[in-house]
Amino acid sequence: MASYSFEPIGIIETPFNTKDGMPIQSIGAEGIKGKIILNEELVPGLKDLDGFSHIILIYIFHRSEGFELLTIPFLDDEKHGVFSTRAPRRPNQIGMSVVKLLSITKNIIEFENADMMNGTPLLDIKPYISAFDVHKSDKNGWLDKDEESSVGKKSDNRFG
Amino acid sequence: MASYSFEPIGIIETPFNTKDGMPIQSIGAEGIKGKIILNEELVPGLKDLDGFSHIILIYIFHRSEGFELLTIPFLDDEKHGVFSTRAPRRPNQIGMSVVKLLSITKNIIEFENADMMNGTPLLDIKPYISAFDVHKSDKNGWLDKDEESSVGKKSDNRFG
Repeated sequence: MASYSFEPIGIIETPFNTKDGMPIQSIGAEGIKGKIILNEELVPGLKDLDGFSHIILIYIFHRSEGFELLTIPFLDDEKHGVFSTRAPRRPNQIGMSVVKLLSITKNIIEFENADMMNGTPLLDIKPYISAFDVHKSDKNGWLDKDEESSVGKKSDNRFG
Repeated sequence: MASYSFEPIGIIETPFNTKDGMPIQSIGAEGIKGKIILNEELVPGLKDLDGFSHIILIYIFHRSEGFELLTIPFLDDEKHGVFSTRAPRRPNQIGMSVVKLLSITKNIIEFENADMMNGTPLLDIKPYISAFDVHKSDKNGWLDKDEESSVGKKSDNRFG
């Protein structure tokens, strides 16, 4: 199949320079600040983004290499199919987080709930829209047993 | 900046062969069925995905070319920065939809709320997890005036 090539639209700065101690997901990253340095020529594309309280960041898991189809996620001790986890080591190493928008000044976007590595290449910013993105999810798979406990849970070296 | 290359993990089949009449987002696509044909060698990666009621699809807007930093989205008549819209014509033509999982049989995943074109190259499947993905979004920007009206709204030829 054809391959598709993307160039980052900017870089995400966060306090996380090593995988140890990173929050598992933005819910465990509450209050942790991050900053997007958008490529300057793209600044006009930010018009009206400040009207949204939350934004979706799509980015590269640039510190992850390779993948296994069955993987033990941070939040469990059993192997699950990689597509039923949010593990960074996946066939296409693309991450997605919903974060809280704080401010936009020229090409600098500050946000809260940072859960990605420092220096993460950013591929896209989309507005988080309640009507599209909030769903009544009545089954959370293997996470149902311990979803709540992920709040504040930190990563370990599992993904090397 | 470096560029990153991705190969699709499969193809999405939907009833939409032309942009006319497509739903704007999965919320306007309620009940419309789609089907993922996953590359067969990736099937083990689907283990336990059937425990989730909703999944996140990350895919290529393969029928869109080029972009404008200021764009008039389907849901409005004014220009907005492309990053404050879900328009398919964007710097990196990556789409994201939350859909309702119906069934998984070998490499075929059936889902509801299809809002993408037939033949869409799929980049990733992630579980939709309430604790990570549901946020109290108190500001929906320019959409606040007409968010409700997007339900059932169809696209036109605006994105050519």
